[in-house]
Amino acid sequence: MDKLAVQLGARSYPISIGENLLSSAKLFESAIVNKKVMIITNNVVAPLYLQQCEKTLQNFQVEHIILPDGEKYKTFKTFEAILNTLLKKKYARDTTIVALGGGVIGDIAGFVAACYQRGVAFIQVPTTVLAQVDSSVGGKTAVNHPLGKNMIGAFYQPQTVIIDINCLKTLPKREFVAGMAEVIKYGVIYDRNFFDWLNDNVDDIKALEADKITYMIKRCCAIKAEIVAQDEKEHGIRALLNLGHTFGHAIEAEQGYGNWLHGEAVAVGIVIAAKIALTKGLIEREEVEQIMLLIDQFNLPSAPPELMKYSHFAKHMQLDKKVLDGKIRLILPTSIGTGDIFSDTSEAAMQSVIGL
Amino acid sequence: MDKLAVQLGARSYPISIGENLLSSAKLFESAIVNKKVMIITNNVVAPLYLQQCEKTLQNFQVEHIILPDGEKYKTFKTFEAILNTLLKKKYARDTTIVALGGGVIGDIAGFVAACYQRGVAFIQVPTTVLAQVDSSVGGKTAVNHPLGKNMIGAFYQPQTVIIDINCLKTLPKREFVAGMAEVIKYGVIYDRNFFDWLNDNVDDIKALEADKITYMIKRCCAIKAEIVAQDEKEHGIRALLNLGHTFGHAIEAEQGYGNWLHGEAVAVGIVIAAKIALTKGLIEREEVEQIMLLIDQFNLPSAPPELMKYSHFAKHMQLDKKVLDGKIRLILPTSIGTGDIFSDTSEAAMQSVIGL
Repeated sequence: MDKLAVQLGARSYPISIGENLLSSAKLFESAIVNKKVMIITNNVVAPLYLQQCEKTLQNFQVEHIILPDGEKYKTFKTFEAILNTLLKKKYARDTTIVALGGGVIGDIAGFVAACYQRGVAFIQVPTTVLAQVDSSVGGKTAVNHPLGKNMIGAFYQPQTVIIDINCLKTLPKREFVAGMAEVIKYGVIYDRNFFDWLNDNVDDIKALEADKITYMIKRCCAIKAEIVAQDEKEHGIRALLNLGHTFGHAIEAEQGYGNWLHGEAVAVGIVIAAKIALTKGLIEREEVEQIMLLIDQFNLPSAPPELMKYSHFAKHMQLDKKVLDGKIRLILPTSIGTGDIFSDTSEAAMQSVIGL
Repeated sequence: MDKLAVQLGARSYPISIGENLLSSAKLFESAIVNKKVMIITNNVVAPLYLQQCEKTLQNFQVEHIILPDGEKYKTFKTFEAILNTLLKKKYARDTTIVALGGGVIGDIAGFVAACYQRGVAFIQVPTTVLAQVDSSVGGKTAVNHPLGKNMIGAFYQPQTVIIDINCLKTLPKREFVAGMAEVIKYGVIYDRNFFDWLNDNVDDIKALEADKITYMIKRCCAIKAEIVAQDEKEHGIRALLNLGHTFGHAIEAEQGYGNWLHGEAVAVGIVIAAKIALTKGLIEREEVEQIMLLIDQFNLPSAPPELMKYSHFAKHMQLDKKVLDGKIRLILPTSIGTGDIFSDTSEAAMQSVIGL
C-alpha cells in the first residue's frame, strides 16, 4: 500500500492507494468520528462493493443510501433527498459519511457532508479512474444545475481517501477510458515525464497491469495533492487542473448530463485548448499532435458532437466558474507539461478552432 | 465608529460598529471583490434601507433580491430560489453578496454565498439587535428544515460585518426585546460584569440611548469574536453560546417557525437551563432569580407555551446538533458569568423543570 498526504494544516489528510483496501478496517476506523456511518453509493456500485464495505465496517452502526447511477442524478433534488433521509433517521453531528463510488457519488456525498448540520466527517472511497485520480482528492464537492455544471457546492475536505485499485477491474471499459482523460490532463498541463510515461505504457494501462495502474494513480494524486496544498480554493495554480473543462462542461450541458461522460467531454476540451494554444502561437504543432495521438490511443474522442458549434459552446461558457470580470479565462498548454491561464482569447480564435 | 476583528488567520475580518455606517462607501468597498453586487434583503427592511444601501454602492453594478420577511421563509426552497436567480442572471464567482437584514437574511444569504459556485464573497449588514450582537458574527449560516432549525448550512465567514446602530430605531419593539435575549446570554454564560452593567442600564437600553447601545453591541461582538477565534467550528468553548438554544429551538419548531421569535424562545431556554442547573446544584438560587429578573425587566417570556410539556421538547431535542453519542448535551450556567457543557442530565431533572 502507498500513502500520500494532502497538506492543509489542521485539515491535512492521507490518501491510501493499493489492492484490497476496501477490506482494511484500520484505514476506515482511523477516520470515523463515532458510531454512526452512512454509506452513500449507487445502484451499479452497490451490488459489487457495498457488502464488502459494510463487512469491513461491522464494528459501527452502518446504513446506506443507494442512488440511481449517473451524472443526471447529481442534482439539487438528490442533495435535498439525502439530507431529508439523514434528518428523518436522526443522524447527529458525529455522523461519518462514506462516499463509495465514482465522481458523482463523491461530489454529492461530499456536498451533503459539507452542509449537514454545518458539516460532518466524510471518507472518499473512489471506485472509478476519474474519481481515484481526480475528484476524490482536493475537497471540491458540488451538484449540477440545468444552467451549469457544479454550480452549487463547497470546498470541503474529506478525513481520508481510500483508493482500492481492485475496483477498476469491474469498471466498464467506457468509464475506464473516460477517466484516462483526467490522467492525460496531468501530463499535458503539469508533467512532461508523466506524459511520456503514459505514451510508453498505453497497452499495460489498458490491460490494467496492477503495478502500472498503481503508479499512474499515485502520480496523479501526488500532483493533485501538491497543487491543492498550494491553492486549496483555486485562486491561482489550481485552475490549471481545469484544462479542457470549460469546453468539456459546455459539451456535457449541451448534450444533457450523462449522455457524454465527463472524461469524454474533457478529452475533447483538451484538444480544443491545445488547438487554440496553437492558433495563438503558444505551443508547437508537433506537441499538439502528440497530445491528440495520446488521446486517440486511449480511444477517447477529440472532436465535439457534430452539430455543436461555437454558439452552443458560448452559451454555456459565459456561466462557467472561470469567467472573471466578464472575460472567459482559458487554461491553455504552453508546451507538454506546462500551461497557464489566458483571458485574452478572441472569439474569432475560438470560432476558428471549434467551427461556426 | 468602533472597530473589532475576528481573528481567523487568512480569513480574519473586521466588524465596524457605529452610526450612519450604511452610508460609508469605504467600509463596503474594501470588502467587494469586483463589480457585481447582489443585495439580499426582505420586504420589511427594503423600504427602510435598500435605497440608502444602493446609493452607497453606486459605483458598482448592484441588484437586489427581496424575500418575504420571517423565519418561516428560511427554507431550503428559498435557498434554491436565490441560487436559481443568481444563475439565471449569470452572476460569476467574483460576485459579492450583501446580507441586509436580520438573522434570517444573514443566515440564508450567507449560506447562498457559501455554496454559490463553491463560495463567493459576502458582507453582513445586520439591522436587528439579534443579528448585530450574534448571528452576523462568526460565520454560522443555515436554513431550517421541518425536522429542525439550522439543520442544513455551513461555517462560512463574511469579508466584513458593518453594524449601523441607527437601524435599530426602526426595529419593532417586539424584535428589539427578542434580541435582548442573546445579549443577556453573553452576560449569563461568559461575563458577570456585563450582566451587572445590563442590570444597571435597563431603562437607557430600552430608550435606545446611543452610547449605551453602542457599548452593548460592541461588548457582545467582542465576546463573540473572542470565542469564535478560539473555536471556529464549535468543537469546544463556542458551544457555550448555545445557552438556552436547545430548548429554544424546540419551542420554535413546535410552535411553527416565526410564531415565537427566536429570541423569545431563547429567553425561555435560558430560564429552563438555569433552573436545571439549580436542580443539579450547579448554581445558587439567588443567581437564578437574578437571571429571571433581568429577563423579565426586558419584557421577555420566561415560561414555555402553556401546552408544551417535556414530551414536546424531547421530540425536537433528539435531533439537536448538540446531541452527541445519543446524549443531549446541555449548556448550563454554573454561576452568572460562567457555564459548561453537561451530558449527564437525567430526563427526570428536565421533566421536573419543564413539566410532564
